[in-house]
Amino acid sequence: MPKVVDHNERRTRIAEALLRVAGEHGLEAVSLRHVAAEAGVTSGMVQHYFRTKDEMMAFALEVVRERSEARLTAAAAGLGPDPTPRRLLRTIVAEVLPVDEPRRADGRVALAFLAYTAVRPEAAAPLRADTAEMRAFVADRIRAGGPREGIDPDLAAVGLLALMEGLGVHLLGGHYGPDVALAALDAHLDTIFE
Amino acid sequence: MPKVVDHNERRTRIAEALLRVAGEHGLEAVSLRHVAAEAGVTSGMVQHYFRTKDEMMAFALEVVRERSEARLTAAAAGLGPDPTPRRLLRTIVAEVLPVDEPRRADGRVALAFLAYTAVRPEAAAPLRADTAEMRAFVADRIRAGGPREGIDPDLAAVGLLALMEGLGVHLLGGHYGPDVALAALDAHLDTIFE
Repeated sequence: MPKVVDHNERRTRIAEALLRVAGEHGLEAVSLRHVAAEAGVTSGMVQHYFRTKDEMMAFALEVVRERSEARLTAAAAGLGPDPTPRRLLRTIVAEVLPVDEPRRADGRVALAFLAYTAVRPEAAAPLRADTAEMRAFVADRIRAGGPREGIDPDLAAVGLLALMEGLGVHLLGGHYGPDVALAALDAHLDTIFE
Repeated sequence: MPKVVDHNERRTRIAEALLRVAGEHGLEAVSLRHVAAEAGVTSGMVQHYFRTKDEMMAFALEVVRERSEARLTAAAAGLGPDPTPRRLLRTIVAEVLPVDEPRRADGRVALAFLAYTAVRPEAAAPLRADTAEMRAFVADRIRAGGPREGIDPDLAAVGLLALMEGLGVHLLGGHYGPDVALAALDAHLDTIFE
């Protein structure tokens, strides 16, 4: 009987190798050959699953998004039933920030993808869909959480997500440490909620 | 008489070619050969000025920083004498945001550099020095501008610069347009100043 190949497992294994290469050496080090070596497969095998680097990148981006969604869901579940909207938002943002090495590795990959998609707008479509969904979710939580007078929940959601992205970029660049980033996040939440 | 070669002019010309390549095709397209072709010089000439890609990247980063500083200084000067701190900060942040094509090109390059330095922490040193200087300047302006009760100028400066970075990243990704980004910026400034 022929061995059954789990194609999705193989694709994922190759994508994870790509993520390690991008996280350690940067996006410019990502090539079919380098990824194949990291995954312990042949270049031919990589090309069997991904015809181009773009296809490989798109799939790896999917893997990162799923991983990040699972992490957020777990963090939110850890809060128990009915956390306050402020506590929920604080947990979600803090969960995403690159404050330890596994999150820094993910953050470097995310930054590499952002740079990659900035010159390939069509590749950014899934990221745009995520952000739009997050914006609606965050605005809804701000609305439910009793925002301060004068706060527009939709614009405050844009602002909070931009703050999250920027704190992440500055943490990755070593501009300051987790303490400063989390203090700035809390100070920002103070301006949104009573 | 031998022709006098303006070495700085040549280095700058090569760096600008690098910026065009990175802005149009992404950082992974930056190679000695590609940059030489874009600058209209030989690969040997590029190697005469920059022994490695890292050296070339570091110099190009300098060019971007000088260009961006000149732009900020001009925008601030355009406000006339003694602008309010809020107006000055709003002008500076709006000036940096990638709201039109020249700024988008610069923004793509900046993002490529951020991704590049995230895996080479030592290369991020000049960026860290800039951010530290900007943080002190912004905190000082917030302090002078009559912040709302409860605002910590130092943390608010960290927050405003993170917001600026994040709005820039989301604009580059096409997550929303300039109108939304500027409205979110104004809403954010409303939470800092009376």
